[in-house]
Amino acid sequence: MLNVLTRDEAVALIKEKTAQFVPETEKVNISSALGRTLAQDIVSKENIPSFDRTTVDGYAVIAEDTFGAGNSAPVQLDIAGEILMGENADFTLERGQCAKISTGGMLPKGANAAVMVEHTDSGEGLCLIYKSAAPYENVTKTGDDISQNETALKKGTVITPAQIGVLSALGVYEVPVYKKPVIAVISTGDEIVKDNPEKGQIRDINTYLLSSAVKNYGCEVYEYGAVRDSREEIENAVKSCIKKADAVLISGGSSAGTRDMTVDITDTLGKAYFHGIAMKPGKPTIFGIVENKPVFGLPGHPLAAYFVFRLIVTEYIKNIMNMHADKPEKSGSLAVNIPSNHGREEFLCVKFNENNEVVPLHTKSGIVSVLSEAEGFIRIPRNAEGMFKGTAVEIYEL
Amino acid sequence: MLNVLTRDEAVALIKEKTAQFVPETEKVNISSALGRTLAQDIVSKENIPSFDRTTVDGYAVIAEDTFGAGNSAPVQLDIAGEILMGENADFTLERGQCAKISTGGMLPKGANAAVMVEHTDSGEGLCLIYKSAAPYENVTKTGDDISQNETALKKGTVITPAQIGVLSALGVYEVPVYKKPVIAVISTGDEIVKDNPEKGQIRDINTYLLSSAVKNYGCEVYEYGAVRDSREEIENAVKSCIKKADAVLISGGSSAGTRDMTVDITDTLGKAYFHGIAMKPGKPTIFGIVENKPVFGLPGHPLAAYFVFRLIVTEYIKNIMNMHADKPEKSGSLAVNIPSNHGREEFLCVKFNENNEVVPLHTKSGIVSVLSEAEGFIRIPRNAEGMFKGTAVEIYEL
Repeated sequence: MLNVLTRDEAVALIKEKTAQFVPETEKVNISSALGRTLAQDIVSKENIPSFDRTTVDGYAVIAEDTFGAGNSAPVQLDIAGEILMGENADFTLERGQCAKISTGGMLPKGANAAVMVEHTDSGEGLCLIYKSAAPYENVTKTGDDISQNETALKKGTVITPAQIGVLSALGVYEVPVYKKPVIAVISTGDEIVKDNPEKGQIRDINTYLLSSAVKNYGCEVYEYGAVRDSREEIENAVKSCIKKADAVLISGGSSAGTRDMTVDITDTLGKAYFHGIAMKPGKPTIFGIVENKPVFGLPGHPLAAYFVFRLIVTEYIKNIMNMHADKPEKSGSLAVNIPSNHGREEFLCVKFNENNEVVPLHTKSGIVSVLSEAEGFIRIPRNAEGMFKGTAVEIYEL
Repeated sequence: MLNVLTRDEAVALIKEKTAQFVPETEKVNISSALGRTLAQDIVSKENIPSFDRTTVDGYAVIAEDTFGAGNSAPVQLDIAGEILMGENADFTLERGQCAKISTGGMLPKGANAAVMVEHTDSGEGLCLIYKSAAPYENVTKTGDDISQNETALKKGTVITPAQIGVLSALGVYEVPVYKKPVIAVISTGDEIVKDNPEKGQIRDINTYLLSSAVKNYGCEVYEYGAVRDSREEIENAVKSCIKKADAVLISGGSSAGTRDMTVDITDTLGKAYFHGIAMKPGKPTIFGIVENKPVFGLPGHPLAAYFVFRLIVTEYIKNIMNMHADKPEKSGSLAVNIPSNHGREEFLCVKFNENNEVVPLHTKSGIVSVLSEAEGFIRIPRNAEGMFKGTAVEIYEL
């Protein structure tokens, strides 16, 4: 009989046993990099911007020339030239000179500030400056955005549009990312049918729910489909999935015996490490390794299966790709008391009520609509003596 | 000269002028539905579950038979049969009878509760019940999850794994979604080059940043690329994009004249409605309609362009697909004072410090790395007299 672990123990064990299963790296074009995970630090080869740029339309100046300028006492400067956008400003500003410049334009040598056109008057090669400029006022200096040799993005970063912006600024058009781990999904249960359920039967939910959760987490899915609660069928499914995927999820079956079958098959084909986590939902979670590939046994109830995916399986995914840790996404105060959970760490789907308080959604096992209605979930620690109305709670993304 | 609007006025005008541009509907297989937007309410044709199911392994009973049962006074019932998983329980339980049942199994007629196997003892066709069951204890009743004719999912819902779960429970394998709007992205600026920038030039950031933002919002992108600040080039780009896309985004150019060119081209090819929103960043935003397609002029600075996309363009996308409104995702308290913003609604990138306080990230125009570093953004209302350290602020997702 395998031990029941706490969630922390379970996650630590999974991390230890899967640490070496780092996916291979590939390069993808920046246009396909959204949602992928960086496999290397991105170190800037250059300064961004690579030249001092003005942030206003107006005149590039030597700041010191403008000191003391004001509405009643403008400073007069010679217009030494105009800097066109995209042009290398290859002349040097001397004291007493200025140059016409547009937002984003390159400052000529010698210039160290810019004055907005609104604070100037010009004509006949001369410009009156009505406002003094501090050194580097209205200027983005070389390397202000990203400096040369700076680590601009860290390995393990999941690429969002913001990171795409940084990659394009650096000219990294071929982006080193981890190959998507392929995760197989097997659904088991004698009551599960593909469609048109008779009385006593239900449609396969977990195949679709878990497959989309896998994809949503940046992995590829190998959808095996549903099998009956038969040792032979499950064993064949696992063997087949181990060949095609990097990890296997088996959800269900609902009958008590199936869970033992899953442990048994895992232990026959490889090694089972635990059977049971002190968390609710998710108690009957199984973890093992078969042919250097992790096998997770998930509960049959869709809601419980989803929570085990979200809290346990994603820790494996994050670990092998160095992804950054989960952070609570929102917080709020409880609208009601929540009773003690008697020693199991508990997770509850919640939503916000009209007063923006956090309301736990009452769930019975097997209810999938709650997941769809929820705006997140909260965590009740092990051995909490219940939580009172008004308690501040952190809400995690489903 | 077109008026400068407040953001609310701008969004209201965009919604009014684009309300009829609802995308066509298509059906996609449930396996491809993740991230798409529902084009119809999903009304359940049946009860889920379609039969009373037990949530435990044990015995289906008539609750009234068990009343008064306890450890020292068990109730004895005849075992009338066993219900296998997936089987139609087509017999009726009489008073004094029970039936063996597994989690998820169908209750026989007459039964209205289940007792966990842990609270029973059985042998020789008889079962001792040591705990009384209330009516419907340990039972999910017909339609408890989703009832017949209930609207299970609303039109405009963006499909997450949770919704995939509901769709599969209902047997909706072909999902009615909106066709992805195609949004064209044009980047302008004489200083912008595809790669290998010389002094005075910078790489094209906005094409990649905005294209990925468009994709991230569930739309398709038509990437036109960068053009110079020439009336002819921009006009040709807009004409070409209008033919291929449902909406056009033009970012930049940095020079003052280009923005007027964009307004002018929009007004020549169609009609420009506004040029300027009282928000920071994002002031020089342009909106018009050409051949029944919206055209948005965005600032050239990547950060400002992204904010206008996130706050203005997405309102158009959400409007035509009935997507649900934005909600703040997190909240926190300010780590520092923020000065008054003098009448413009202001948006600031922020991150959390080690004390979990909210720190605004200092940005100069044109800085893209801030976007990547930020954990969200906050909004300073128009005419706010500044905000003090400790003020609770809501944080929106970037």
